[in-house]
Amino acid sequence: MAKKMSVVVFTGSVDRLTGMAVLVSAAAASEMEVHLFLQLWGVYAFRKDVVEKNMNFSEFSELKQEVHEGLVRVKAPSWIELLKQAKELGNVKIHACSLAMQIWNVKKEDLVDIVDDVIGAAEFIDYASESDVTFFV
Amino acid sequence: MAKKMSVVVFTGSVDRLTGMAVLVSAAAASEMEVHLFLQLWGVYAFRKDVVEKNMNFSEFSELKQEVHEGLVRVKAPSWIELLKQAKELGNVKIHACSLAMQIWNVKKEDLVDIVDDVIGAAEFIDYASESDVTFFV
Amino acid sequence: MAKKMSVVVFTGSVDRLTGMAVLVSAAAASEMEVHLFLQLWGVYAFRKDVVEKNMNFSEFSELKQEVHEGLVRVKAPSWIELLKQAKELGNVKIHACSLAMQIWNVKKEDLVDIVDDVIGAAEFIDYASESDVTFFV
Repeated sequence: MAKKMSVVVFTGSVDRLTGMAVLVSAAAASEMEVHLFLQLWGVYAFRKDVVEKNMNFSEFSELKQEVHEGLVRVKAPSWIELLKQAKELGNVKIHACSLAMQIWNVKKEDLVDIVDDVIGAAEFIDYASESDVTFFV
Repeated sequence: MAKKMSVVVFTGSVDRLTGMAVLVSAAAASEMEVHLFLQLWGVYAFRKDVVEKNMNFSEFSELKQEVHEGLVRVKAPSWIELLKQAKELGNVKIHACSLAMQIWNVKKEDLVDIVDDVIGAAEFIDYASESDVTFFV
Repeated sequence: MAKKMSVVVFTGSVDRLTGMAVLVSAAAASEMEVHLFLQLWGVYAFRKDVVEKNMNFSEFSELKQEVHEGLVRVKAPSWIELLKQAKELGNVKIHACSLAMQIWNVKKEDLVDIVDDVIGAAEFIDYASESDVTFFV
Protein backbone atom coordinates (compact mmCIF):
# COMPACT_ATOMS: atom_id res chain seq x y z
CA MET A 1 0.00 0.00 0.00
CA ALA A 2 1.27 3.48 -0.83
CA LYS A 3 2.81 5.50 1.97
CA LYS A 4 0.89 8.64 2.89
CA MET A 5 1.83 12.24 3.74
CA SER A 6 -0.61 14.79 5.23
CA VAL A 7 0.32 18.46 5.42
CA VAL A 8 -1.52 21.32 7.11
CA VAL A 9 -0.83 24.37 4.95
CA PHE A 10 -1.52 27.15 7.43
CA THR A 11 0.99 29.55 5.87
CA GLY A 12 0.36 31.90 2.97
CA SER A 13 3.98 33.04 2.71
CA VAL A 14 5.76 32.33 -0.56
CA ASP A 15 8.99 31.13 1.05
CA ARG A 16 7.26 28.51 3.23
CA LEU A 17 4.89 27.51 0.40
CA THR A 18 7.95 26.85 -1.79
CA GLY A 19 9.55 24.64 0.86
CA MET A 20 6.28 22.76 1.23
CA ALA A 21 5.86 22.32 -2.55
CA VAL A 22 9.40 20.86 -2.86
CA LEU A 23 8.50 18.24 -0.24
CA VAL A 24 5.18 17.47 -1.95
CA SER A 25 6.93 17.05 -5.32
CA ALA A 26 9.39 14.60 -3.79
CA ALA A 27 6.63 12.65 -2.06
CA ALA A 28 4.55 12.44 -5.25
CA ALA A 29 7.62 11.26 -7.20
CA SER A 30 8.11 8.59 -4.52
CA GLU A 31 4.54 7.44 -5.21
CA MET A 32 3.21 8.57 -1.86
CA GLU A 33 -0.41 9.62 -1.47
CA VAL A 34 -0.42 13.27 -0.39
CA HIS A 35 -3.18 15.29 1.32
CA LEU A 36 -2.86 19.05 1.80
CA PHE A 37 -5.25 20.88 4.14
CA LEU A 38 -5.39 24.63 3.54
CA GLN A 39 -6.07 26.63 6.68
CA LEU A 40 -6.29 30.42 7.09
CA TRP A 41 -3.39 31.88 5.08
CA GLY A 42 -3.21 28.77 2.93
CA VAL A 43 -6.71 29.43 1.60
CA TYR A 44 -5.76 33.09 1.14
CA ALA A 45 -2.68 32.19 -0.93
CA PHE A 46 -4.70 29.87 -3.21
CA ARG A 47 -7.28 32.59 -4.01
CA LYS A 48 -7.31 33.44 -7.74
CA ASP A 49 -7.16 37.15 -6.88
CA VAL A 50 -4.11 36.65 -4.63
CA VAL A 51 -1.94 33.87 -6.08
CA GLU A 52 -0.08 35.94 -8.69
CA LYS A 53 0.47 39.09 -6.63
CA ASN A 54 1.41 37.52 -3.29
CA MET A 55 5.06 38.23 -2.44
CA ASN A 56 4.91 37.78 1.35
CA PHE A 57 7.90 36.16 3.08
CA SER A 58 7.63 34.65 6.56
CA GLU A 59 11.19 35.51 7.63
CA PHE A 60 14.13 37.70 6.60
CA SER A 61 12.11 39.98 4.31
CA GLU A 62 15.29 41.99 3.76
CA LEU A 63 16.76 39.02 1.84
CA LYS A 64 13.73 38.52 -0.42
CA GLN A 65 15.49 39.91 -3.49
CA GLU A 66 18.50 37.62 -3.05
CA VAL A 67 16.25 34.55 -2.73
CA HIS A 68 14.25 35.55 -5.80
CA GLU A 69 17.44 35.93 -7.82
CA GLY A 70 18.60 32.52 -6.61
CA LEU A 71 15.29 30.92 -7.60
CA VAL A 72 15.53 32.47 -11.09
CA ARG A 73 19.19 31.40 -11.47
CA VAL A 74 18.39 27.74 -10.68
CA LYS A 75 15.24 27.95 -12.86
CA ALA A 76 13.06 26.73 -9.97
CA PRO A 77 9.35 26.60 -10.83
CA SER A 78 7.00 28.62 -8.59
CA TRP A 79 5.33 26.81 -5.69
CA ILE A 80 2.01 26.69 -7.55
CA GLU A 81 3.70 25.27 -10.65
CA LEU A 82 5.46 22.64 -8.50
CA LEU A 83 2.09 21.60 -7.06
CA LYS A 84 0.50 21.40 -10.52
CA GLN A 85 3.31 19.15 -11.71
CA ALA A 86 3.06 17.02 -8.56
CA LYS A 87 -0.69 16.55 -9.15
CA GLU A 88 -0.07 15.47 -12.76
CA LEU A 89 2.67 13.10 -11.69
CA GLY A 90 1.13 11.48 -8.64
CA ASN A 91 -1.69 11.24 -6.15
CA VAL A 92 -1.91 14.69 -4.54
CA LYS A 93 -5.18 16.02 -3.13
CA ILE A 94 -5.64 19.64 -2.05
CA HIS A 95 -8.43 20.24 0.46
CA ALA A 96 -9.53 23.69 1.63
CA CYS A 97 -10.71 24.05 5.25
CA SER A 98 -14.42 24.87 5.37
CA LEU A 99 -13.99 27.25 8.32
CA ALA A 100 -11.24 29.20 6.53
CA MET A 101 -13.45 29.45 3.44
CA GLN A 102 -16.15 31.05 5.59
CA ILE A 103 -13.71 33.45 7.25
CA TRP A 104 -12.59 34.71 3.81
CA ASN A 105 -16.17 34.50 2.56
CA VAL A 106 -15.08 32.69 -0.60
CA LYS A 107 -16.33 29.69 -2.61
CA LYS A 108 -14.40 26.87 -4.25
CA GLU A 109 -14.55 28.66 -7.63
CA ASP A 110 -12.67 31.60 -6.05
CA LEU A 111 -9.63 29.35 -5.53
CA VAL A 112 -7.15 28.17 -8.18
CA ASP A 113 -8.45 25.04 -9.84
CA ILE A 114 -5.86 22.63 -8.42
CA VAL A 115 -7.87 22.73 -5.18
CA ASP A 116 -9.93 19.52 -5.13
CA ASP A 117 -12.59 20.17 -2.50
CA VAL A 118 -13.67 21.84 0.73
CA ILE A 119 -13.67 19.67 3.84
CA GLY A 120 -13.85 20.02 7.61
CA ALA A 121 -10.93 19.55 9.98
CA ALA A 122 -12.31 16.22 11.24
CA GLU A 123 -12.06 14.70 7.77
CA PHE A 124 -8.48 15.92 7.39
CA ILE A 125 -7.56 14.51 10.81
CA ASP A 126 -8.78 11.13 9.51
CA TYR A 127 -6.31 11.37 6.61
CA ALA A 128 -3.53 12.53 8.93
CA SER A 129 -4.07 9.72 11.43
CA GLU A 130 -3.53 7.19 8.61
CA SER A 131 -0.37 8.92 7.38
CA ASP A 132 3.31 8.05 7.66
CA VAL A 133 4.45 11.68 7.49
CA THR A 134 2.62 14.69 8.95
CA PHE A 135 3.69 18.35 8.79
CA PHE A 136 2.21 21.69 9.86
CA VAL A 137 3.60 24.38 7.57
CA MET B 1 -6.58 1.70 21.29
CA ALA B 2 -7.18 5.40 20.71
CA LYS B 3 -5.11 7.13 18.04
CA LYS B 4 -2.76 9.81 19.36
CA MET B 5 -1.74 13.30 18.25
CA SER B 6 1.22 15.23 19.69
CA VAL B 7 1.69 18.90 18.91
CA VAL B 8 4.61 21.18 19.77
CA VAL B 9 3.07 24.61 20.33
CA PHE B 10 6.11 26.83 19.78
CA THR B 11 4.07 29.76 18.47
CA GLY B 12 2.39 32.46 20.53
CA SER B 13 0.66 34.10 17.57
CA VAL B 14 -3.13 34.17 17.62
CA ASP B 15 -3.56 33.15 13.99
CA ARG B 16 -1.42 30.00 14.31
CA LEU B 17 -2.90 29.18 17.73
CA THR B 18 -6.35 29.31 16.15
CA GLY B 19 -5.34 26.92 13.37
CA MET B 20 -3.84 24.58 15.98
CA ALA B 21 -6.96 24.73 18.18
CA VAL B 22 -9.22 23.83 15.24
CA LEU B 23 -7.11 20.70 14.63
CA VAL B 24 -7.13 19.80 18.33
CA SER B 25 -10.93 20.18 18.47
CA ALA B 26 -11.30 17.85 15.50
CA ALA B 27 -8.91 15.28 16.97
CA ALA B 28 -10.67 15.34 20.34
CA ALA B 29 -14.05 14.91 18.62
CA SER B 30 -12.56 11.92 16.77
CA GLU B 31 -11.67 10.44 20.18
CA MET B 32 -7.94 10.82 19.69
CA GLU B 33 -5.65 11.31 22.68
CA VAL B 34 -3.97 14.70 22.28
CA HIS B 35 -0.78 16.03 23.88
CA LEU B 36 0.27 19.66 23.49
CA PHE B 37 3.78 20.75 24.47
CA LEU B 38 4.11 24.49 25.00
CA GLN B 39 7.54 25.84 24.10
CA LEU B 40 8.79 29.45 24.21
CA TRP B 41 5.98 31.60 22.73
CA GLY B 42 3.42 28.94 23.55
CA VAL B 43 4.10 29.34 27.28
CA TYR B 44 4.02 33.12 26.79
CA ALA B 45 0.58 32.98 25.12
CA PHE B 46 -0.88 30.83 27.93
CA ARG B 47 0.24 33.29 30.65
CA LYS B 48 -2.74 34.73 32.56
CA ASP B 49 -1.30 38.24 32.10
CA VAL B 50 -0.96 37.78 28.33
CA VAL B 51 -3.80 35.57 27.08
CA GLU B 52 -6.48 38.27 26.83
CA LYS B 53 -4.37 41.09 25.44
CA ASN B 54 -2.30 39.12 22.91
CA MET B 55 -3.17 40.15 19.35
CA ASN B 56 0.02 39.08 17.58
CA PHE B 57 -0.26 37.59 14.09
CA SER B 58 2.53 35.51 12.52
CA GLU B 59 1.91 36.63 8.93
CA PHE B 60 0.06 39.34 6.96
CA SER B 61 -0.43 41.68 9.93
CA GLU B 62 -2.00 44.15 7.52
CA LEU B 63 -4.98 41.76 7.10
CA LYS B 64 -5.55 41.24 10.83
CA GLN B 65 -8.71 43.35 10.87
CA GLU B 66 -10.27 41.42 7.96
CA VAL B 67 -9.55 38.08 9.64
CA HIS B 68 -10.99 39.30 12.95
CA GLU B 69 -14.18 40.41 11.18
CA GLY B 70 -14.41 37.03 9.47
CA LEU B 71 -13.99 35.20 12.80
CA VAL B 72 -16.76 37.33 14.36
CA ARG B 73 -19.05 36.83 11.34
CA VAL B 74 -18.76 33.01 11.51
CA LYS B 75 -19.06 33.16 15.34
CA ALA B 76 -15.80 31.19 15.78
CA PRO B 77 -14.79 30.74 19.42
CA SER B 78 -11.33 32.03 20.41
CA TRP B 79 -8.44 29.56 20.36
CA ILE B 80 -8.45 29.34 24.16
CA GLU B 81 -12.20 28.67 24.20
CA LEU B 82 -11.77 25.97 21.52
CA LEU B 83 -9.12 24.27 23.68
CA LYS B 84 -11.36 24.46 26.79
CA GLN B 85 -14.18 22.80 24.85
CA ALA B 86 -11.82 20.17 23.46
CA LYS B 87 -10.62 19.33 26.97
CA GLU B 88 -14.23 18.94 28.18
CA LEU B 89 -15.12 16.80 25.20
CA GLY B 90 -12.12 14.52 24.96
CA ASN B 91 -8.70 13.50 26.18
CA VAL B 92 -6.50 16.57 25.69
CA LYS B 93 -3.45 17.22 27.86
CA ILE B 94 -1.57 20.51 27.84
CA HIS B 95 2.04 20.31 29.03
CA ALA B 96 4.29 23.35 29.49
CA CYS B 97 8.01 22.96 28.75
CA SER B 98 10.07 23.25 31.94
CA LEU B 99 12.87 25.15 30.17
CA ALA B 100 10.44 27.70 28.73
CA MET B 101 8.91 28.17 32.21
CA GLN B 102 12.38 29.03 33.54
CA ILE B 103 13.11 31.43 30.67
CA TRP B 104 9.91 33.37 31.44
CA ASN B 105 10.52 32.90 35.16
CA VAL B 106 6.91 31.80 35.71
CA LYS B 107 5.20 29.05 37.70
CA LYS B 108 2.28 26.80 36.74
CA GLU B 109 -0.16 29.09 38.61
CA ASP B 110 0.89 31.96 36.30
CA LEU B 111 -0.60 30.07 33.32
CA VAL B 112 -4.29 29.67 32.46
CA ASP B 113 -5.73 26.71 34.32
CA ILE B 114 -6.26 24.46 31.28
CA VAL B 115 -2.51 23.75 31.43
CA ASP B 116 -2.14 20.34 33.08
CA ASP B 117 1.51 20.19 34.10
CA VAL B 118 5.11 21.16 33.49
CA ILE B 119 7.32 18.51 31.88
CA GLY B 120 10.70 18.21 30.16
CA ALA B 121 11.21 17.74 26.44
CA ALA B 122 12.26 14.10 26.91
CA GLU B 123 8.87 13.22 28.37
CA PHE B 124 7.07 14.94 25.49
CA ILE B 125 9.26 13.12 22.95
CA ASP B 126 8.03 9.87 24.53
CA TYR B 127 4.41 10.91 23.85
CA ALA B 128 5.31 12.03 20.32
CA SER B 129 7.10 8.79 19.45
CA GLU B 130 3.91 6.86 20.30
CA SER B 131 1.71 9.18 18.24
CA ASP B 132 0.01 8.75 14.86
CA VAL B 133 0.07 12.48 14.09
CA THR B 134 2.82 14.94 15.04
CA PHE B 135 2.93 18.68 14.32
CA PHE B 136 5.24 21.58 15.18
CA VAL B 137 3.18 24.77 15.20
CA MET C 1 15.06 -1.00 16.48
CA ALA C 2 15.63 2.64 17.40
CA LYS C 3 12.72 5.03 16.99
CA LYS C 4 13.26 7.73 14.37
CA MET C 5 12.55 11.47 14.15
CA SER C 6 12.77 13.50 10.93
CA VAL C 7 12.63 17.29 11.02
CA VAL C 8 12.43 19.75 8.15
CA VAL C 9 14.37 22.82 9.31
CA PHE C 10 12.90 25.47 7.04
CA THR C 11 13.36 28.29 9.54
CA GLY C 12 16.48 30.37 10.06
CA SER C 13 15.13 32.24 13.09
CA VAL C 14 17.01 31.80 16.34
CA ASP C 15 13.91 31.35 18.49
CA ARG C 16 12.51 28.49 16.38
CA LEU C 17 15.97 26.93 15.92
CA THR C 18 16.31 26.87 19.73
CA GLY C 19 12.94 25.13 20.14
CA MET C 20 13.96 22.61 17.47
CA ALA C 21 17.37 21.97 19.08
CA VAL C 22 15.76 21.28 22.48
CA LEU C 23 13.57 18.61 20.86
CA VAL C 24 16.55 17.10 19.00
CA SER C 25 18.57 16.96 22.25
CA ALA C 26 15.75 15.13 23.96
CA ALA C 27 15.31 12.69 21.07
CA ALA C 28 19.06 11.95 20.93
CA ALA C 29 19.11 11.38 24.70
CA SER C 30 16.20 8.96 24.22
CA GLU C 31 18.36 7.06 21.71
CA MET C 32 16.24 8.00 18.74
CA GLU C 33 17.81 8.27 15.28
CA VAL C 34 17.34 11.88 14.13
CA HIS C 35 17.45 13.34 10.60
CA LEU C 36 17.37 17.09 10.01
CA PHE C 37 16.74 18.46 6.50
CA LEU C 38 17.82 22.08 6.08
CA GLN C 39 15.67 23.98 3.60
CA LEU C 40 15.92 27.67 2.59
CA TRP C 41 16.46 29.63 5.82
CA GLY C 42 17.83 26.55 7.55
CA VAL C 43 20.77 26.44 5.11
CA TYR C 44 21.18 30.19 5.55
CA ALA C 45 21.36 29.88 9.36
CA PHE C 46 24.01 27.12 9.16
CA ARG C 47 26.30 29.22 6.91
CA LYS C 48 29.66 29.92 8.58
CA ASP C 49 29.33 33.61 7.68
CA VAL C 50 25.84 33.83 9.25
CA VAL C 51 25.69 31.51 12.27
CA GLU C 52 27.34 33.86 14.79
CA LYS C 53 25.72 37.11 13.73
CA ASN C 54 22.16 35.88 13.15
CA MET C 55 19.76 37.36 15.71
CA ASN C 56 16.49 37.01 13.79
CA PHE C 57 13.34 36.11 15.73
CA SER C 58 10.24 34.69 14.03
CA GLU C 59 7.70 36.30 16.39
CA PHE C 60 7.47 39.02 19.05
CA SER C 61 10.74 40.76 18.08
CA GLU C 62 9.95 43.36 20.72
CA LEU C 63 10.52 40.71 23.43
CA LYS C 64 13.86 39.50 22.05
CA GLN C 65 15.88 41.15 24.84
CA GLU C 66 13.73 39.55 27.56
CA VAL C 67 14.13 36.09 26.00
CA HIS C 68 17.90 36.54 25.64
CA GLU C 69 18.15 37.52 29.31
CA GLY C 70 16.10 34.46 30.26
CA LEU C 71 18.35 32.18 28.19
CA VAL C 72 21.44 33.63 29.89
CA ARG C 73 19.88 33.35 33.36
CA VAL C 74 19.10 29.63 32.89
CA LYS C 75 22.52 29.11 31.26
CA ALA C 76 20.92 27.54 28.16
CA PRO C 77 23.45 26.62 25.45
CA SER C 78 22.90 28.16 22.01
CA TRP C 79 20.95 26.14 19.44
CA ILE C 80 24.14 25.29 17.55
CA GLU C 81 25.83 24.14 20.77
CA LEU C 82 22.78 22.00 21.64
CA LEU C 83 23.00 20.33 18.21
CA LYS C 84 26.75 19.70 18.61
CA GLN C 85 26.14 18.04 21.98
CA ALA C 86 23.25 16.00 20.53
CA LYS C 87 25.50 14.76 17.71
CA GLU C 88 28.19 13.71 20.22
CA LEU C 89 25.62 11.99 22.41
CA GLY C 90 23.50 10.20 19.85
CA ASN C 91 22.68 9.44 16.25
CA VAL C 92 21.83 12.82 14.69
CA LYS C 93 22.37 13.48 10.98
CA ILE C 94 22.13 16.95 9.46
CA HIS C 95 21.37 17.04 5.74
CA ALA C 96 21.32 20.23 3.65
CA CYS C 97 18.80 20.46 0.78
CA SER C 98 20.60 20.48 -2.58
CA LEU C 99 18.13 23.00 -4.06
CA ALA C 100 18.62 25.41 -1.16
CA MET C 101 22.40 25.10 -1.54
CA GLN C 102 22.04 26.17 -5.19
CA ILE C 103 19.73 29.08 -4.32
CA TRP C 104 22.32 30.45 -1.86
CA ASN C 105 25.11 29.45 -4.27
CA VAL C 106 27.10 27.80 -1.46
CA LYS C 107 29.04 24.56 -1.05
CA LYS C 108 29.18 22.14 1.88
CA GLU C 109 32.41 23.75 3.16
CA ASP C 110 30.54 27.06 3.49
CA LEU C 111 28.32 25.52 6.20
CA VAL C 112 29.28 24.79 9.82
CA ASP C 113 30.93 21.41 10.05
CA ILE C 114 28.15 19.63 11.94
CA VAL C 115 26.31 19.41 8.60
CA ASP C 116 26.84 15.85 7.34
CA ASP C 117 25.92 16.01 3.67
CA VAL C 118 23.85 17.53 0.87
CA ILE C 119 20.87 15.49 -0.33
CA GLY C 120 17.73 15.94 -2.40
CA ALA C 121 14.21 16.16 -1.01
CA ALA C 122 13.36 12.66 -2.27
CA GLU C 123 16.06 11.12 -0.08
CA PHE C 124 14.82 13.03 2.97
CA ILE C 125 11.23 11.96 2.29
CA ASP C 126 12.49 8.36 2.44
CA TYR C 127 13.86 9.02 5.95
CA ALA C 128 10.65 10.81 6.98
CA SER C 129 8.39 8.03 5.74
CA GLU C 130 10.25 5.57 8.02
CA SER C 131 10.02 7.90 11.04
CA ASP C 132 7.90 7.81 14.18
CA VAL C 133 7.97 11.59 14.63
CA THR C 134 7.98 14.21 11.86
CA PHE C 135 8.08 18.00 12.24
CA PHE C 136 8.31 20.99 9.90
CA VAL C 137 9.98 23.84 11.77
